[in-house]
Amino acid sequence: MGDYNDGESQPEQEKRKRMSCGLEVECPADIRDCLRLSANDGFHFIVTYPVHPRFARDLLVKHPPRIISRTDRLLTSHDWNRLVVGRLTPSLNVDSEVENAARHDKALLTQELGFASHLSLPAIMLKLTHKHNMNLASILYNKLISGASYQVWVNLPMVHSSRYSPLCNDDEREDMWEWWNEFRTYCHYDKRLGLALELPEVKHLPTAKELERWVGEPVKALIIHTSLFITNQHQSFVLAKAHQDIIQKFMYLDVQYIIRGPSQGANNSYKCYWAYINFLGKKLYHVDDTTDYMQGCEDYLQNPLQPLSENLETMVYEVFEKDQIKYVEYQNAIQKALEELPSEIETPVIMVVGAGRGPLVQACLNASYILQRKIKLYAVEKNPFAISTLEDRVQNEWQGQVVLVKEDMRTYEPPEKADILVSELLGSFGDNELSPECLDGAQRFLKKTGISIPSSYTSFLAPLHSIKIYNEIRSNRLPDKTIESIYETPYVVHLVNYYQIAPAQELHRFEHPNWSEIIDNDRYGRLRFTVQQNCVLTAFVGYFETVLYKNIMLSINPKTYSKGMVSWFPIVFSMPDPIHVKEGDIIEVCFWRMQCEDRVWYQWCLESPVRTNIINPNGRSFYIKKH
Amino acid sequence: MGDYNDGESQPEQEKRKRMSCGLEVECPADIRDCLRLSANDGFHFIVTYPVHPRFARDLLVKHPPRIISRTDRLLTSHDWNRLVVGRLTPSLNVDSEVENAARHDKALLTQELGFASHLSLPAIMLKLTHKHNMNLASILYNKLISGASYQVWVNLPMVHSSRYSPLCNDDEREDMWEWWNEFRTYCHYDKRLGLALELPEVKHLPTAKELERWVGEPVKALIIHTSLFITNQHQSFVLAKAHQDIIQKFMYLDVQYIIRGPSQGANNSYKCYWAYINFLGKKLYHVDDTTDYMQGCEDYLQNPLQPLSENLETMVYEVFEKDQIKYVEYQNAIQKALEELPSEIETPVIMVVGAGRGPLVQACLNASYILQRKIKLYAVEKNPFAISTLEDRVQNEWQGQVVLVKEDMRTYEPPEKADILVSELLGSFGDNELSPECLDGAQRFLKKTGISIPSSYTSFLAPLHSIKIYNEIRSNRLPDKTIESIYETPYVVHLVNYYQIAPAQELHRFEHPNWSEIIDNDRYGRLRFTVQQNCVLTAFVGYFETVLYKNIMLSINPKTYSKGMVSWFPIVFSMPDPIHVKEGDIIEVCFWRMQCEDRVWYQWCLESPVRTNIINPNGRSFYIKKH
Repeated sequence: MGDYNDGESQPEQEKRKRMSCGLEVECPADIRDCLRLSANDGFHFIVTYPVHPRFARDLLVKHPPRIISRTDRLLTSHDWNRLVVGRLTPSLNVDSEVENAARHDKALLTQELGFASHLSLPAIMLKLTHKHNMNLASILYNKLISGASYQVWVNLPMVHSSRYSPLCNDDEREDMWEWWNEFRTYCHYDKRLGLALELPEVKHLPTAKELERWVGEPVKALIIHTSLFITNQHQSFVLAKAHQDIIQKFMYLDVQYIIRGPSQGANNSYKCYWAYINFLGKKLYHVDDTTDYMQGCEDYLQNPLQPLSENLETMVYEVFEKDQIKYVEYQNAIQKALEELPSEIETPVIMVVGAGRGPLVQACLNASYILQRKIKLYAVEKNPFAISTLEDRVQNEWQGQVVLVKEDMRTYEPPEKADILVSELLGSFGDNELSPECLDGAQRFLKKTGISIPSSYTSFLAPLHSIKIYNEIRSNRLPDKTIESIYETPYVVHLVNYYQIAPAQELHRFEHPNWSEIIDNDRYGRLRFTVQQNCVLTAFVGYFETVLYKNIMLSINPKTYSKGMVSWFPIVFSMPDPIHVKEGDIIEVCFWRMQCEDRVWYQWCLESPVRTNIINPNGRSFYIKKH
Repeated sequence: MGDYNDGESQPEQEKRKRMSCGLEVECPADIRDCLRLSANDGFHFIVTYPVHPRFARDLLVKHPPRIISRTDRLLTSHDWNRLVVGRLTPSLNVDSEVENAARHDKALLTQELGFASHLSLPAIMLKLTHKHNMNLASILYNKLISGASYQVWVNLPMVHSSRYSPLCNDDEREDMWEWWNEFRTYCHYDKRLGLALELPEVKHLPTAKELERWVGEPVKALIIHTSLFITNQHQSFVLAKAHQDIIQKFMYLDVQYIIRGPSQGANNSYKCYWAYINFLGKKLYHVDDTTDYMQGCEDYLQNPLQPLSENLETMVYEVFEKDQIKYVEYQNAIQKALEELPSEIETPVIMVVGAGRGPLVQACLNASYILQRKIKLYAVEKNPFAISTLEDRVQNEWQGQVVLVKEDMRTYEPPEKADILVSELLGSFGDNELSPECLDGAQRFLKKTGISIPSSYTSFLAPLHSIKIYNEIRSNRLPDKTIESIYETPYVVHLVNYYQIAPAQELHRFEHPNWSEIIDNDRYGRLRFTVQQNCVLTAFVGYFETVLYKNIMLSINPKTYSKGMVSWFPIVFSMPDPIHVKEGDIIEVCFWRMQCEDRVWYQWCLESPVRTNIINPNGRSFYIKKH
């Protein structure tokens, strides 16, 4: 990538993040000029006071002045709505203990909010200057509820100055996150409420875990003061490595960037700052095929697949087949298992159960070819449309080497027994697509000495802080659903805007083949997690790890993640309402896998720090059909 | 525009309709080649059988063949999902009276629908070959309800051949619309169900009113047979004027075009047909500033404004101010009224009540300037943000000629009385933004001899056939609303996909000033409409006409429409469920305007052909706040 040089020519088109960049302007003499100049410098919007301070306002007098600000006819409503973020006057304090001052400021605030609505500004930005802001929250939440169209950006430093001031004792150190959390709790986590966080000085950075918690919040903008920029050897303005690292963390949240403070650049232009931020969009954005494929799914709720009761579609097969990591590991496992089979077995029998459009069949053929060991290969698939594809591949690609069976693996009666049974029936939580039930059925045609690939899988659970997902779930309710059903349903989600409160722990495990006399696939688990810093528990997130064969594994647990694998996103089990938890608190959860004749479901409840009712009893809102 | 010439060079970029065009292909030898060739000829998609007829299928045998069709791996799922509309085998008849034949065809149909889902085709197309199709409807509706992602295009000729066949008696003539209506009624008007209508031969055109009724249906595609094309003097293939007229009518519904039949073009290429359809996108698409402004609002539900209880926003004012027709007529009316005032009145007093950002103030100043007659001008406005704009205009544009009053016109106490009271408080239904109540209050400061502009306004009502709007309304329900509230709420809509069953009739009227001792703004009306052809009553549509002064009018009633006016869309009052009405039926409706202390509402019911309960009693779902 090379060093940043202000004057460098634009490189050829590459994958990069578009960095939406705004300029904070105290009080432009002419807002049209100001917009033209900042657009020339590359900025996408400005942040300024919509109510011009020239118009002194005392609204509690008998005849208040009637001109509030510059006329709205200076810009088209389209431009007001696209180009101007409105700052509220920072000196207003509706939570003042001086009653008259509070009343005075409330009148002014109401006027400013009204004017922001009048102009249809896309967002307003306000600064919290003290800890408790219930009156401010009360006024703003009322506006949001009565249909205000703007977003509200709460401007805060990442770290409060009391944290590093020599004048403060330990018990006087403020946590900015607490200010924010109190404020947004009053507003019921409204999704129009976001953060505009100030990048701190290098010597006052937040801790790593604090930063992670901020990444789990709805950060809409990062405010970068011009004084943070340093000059490099080309005499260009750049940011320190520590700042770049922070920006990189927020980049995936699609934040916007706001330049604040006086320009140190030539002719007081701000172009140098914009150019550098734009450059970071290329330098820091690491995109590979994986991220490419996941784009657009960020924090998007998907219903878990039900491949037993519904036929998968071409589109789903195609996505699975693109995951090279997964099939490479499968092929390794098959090869190793085949290699270790006793040489007395002349032609080992391998059965792929749930063959889909054939990627595991191909992996078996590859392994056989590599080892130059002949195999007899069965492909069992119940989906008639996938069978049609397999038949075509048998005829045109596989020279008739595969025996196709169009049946459900749980009822198929094979002519012989298998040495190796290969399947890929795992969901995001391991067993949630009923792999245990399917393989328990299919092992009828596995030799007693036979091998199942996978040989085991384990479900993991961790407590989650994600207001974003909480809001996605509560806005996901269809008119014909009950209120319970919205949070009793688990979702598969590519998590981005979240903070994992503690490392995931093992919940339950299944092993195959399972020759027990009575097979019981019900499970019950109880896990305890220690909270590392104050945050909000909104859900639990589920992962799985699987042992395909001996040391060959696949995992979506962050700790052991199979890098580059894209087939599975985590699964999220919600809490009805967010629960504020504190550093040192114990989060204890009970979790069940249960079943009856025709379905399997999960149910769960919190034991600590508060006890909740059991969620999804009897699978009333969500279950997995066995047929 | 000039004559169409196949070889003409592409003209410069102009406003035109993008004509999405598909090619029907019976049975391509290689679907990839076929897609490449048709794309080269300009086509956006193909229509073909997904199940290849090469694979004969009898599914009721013990071991049915396993290959259904060409393999799904020929195309990516993205291409299947974008480029291929699947035709169902037309010979299938699941409504056959021969039980075995019906069972056999049902198995094949189920397989074809399953394969269409498997491929994620965007749409399937099926042809109705006889009148009653309850079994076909039953199978398809089940699929739609269980989450099929495809659209269903029902292929029909616009006019059944029995209509012009010399072999048929009058009582044997089939109405294709009835076939369609029966089919979609079984499917509860599902919005994924659309029409693919065949353009008829010139000698078998539908009547004008039949055509209008088709325009009111969810037509997704027009099928144009190559045999309909004729050659012009340039030896290019073109369509007759009658066909162009039909295409023009459907163009605004965003239909797609499908070319069917053998090519008569050079090298059997279909490019000539595509080129001509593309040319029609320019020739027939009449776009002016008006249509431009309305684009994107087609059939979109808007809540009526409530300017009394909520301040209007810059964006709304700006849209209003763009309507030149309206303000020209207002200025004419003001000028005429001013001209006719007795010359004894030295300086006539004009008051604009509800001045907004000042367009009517400007109109008054213009009239005064044109007549060179001095006036005293008051502008009364309650919205503080609009007042701020007005104040700016008074200072910077109007040289202090206007007295600004920041008050509600219903309570303002003026220092003198007006000769002319000018207002624009009308909604889509005339009185629905409470113009009567406002002007009754404001006339306190009008001289007894004074003039109100507008001097009267009249609401009109007409029965409406629009399944599109019916579906928009029923899918508009928020989780916190009752089922009733969805259809008891009126919406303002730019109607496009609709058929007006009968001409609008006058419902009620208001006149100003109203010097009656007791003013009663409640209204009750009862209207009778005669149905001109079988169709479906889904709602009533409301319009208004207003007399500004003497012969100067504004109207959104289609019969008297003020051409070029864009400020108002019609208002729609729904029925709970569609009602099939027949030619000659009487539609009778009762309609009330009612009020209490703090609100005004409408309620309505149908008297004939069936009686319904009263809809929106007590304004329970929708009302207009007085404060």
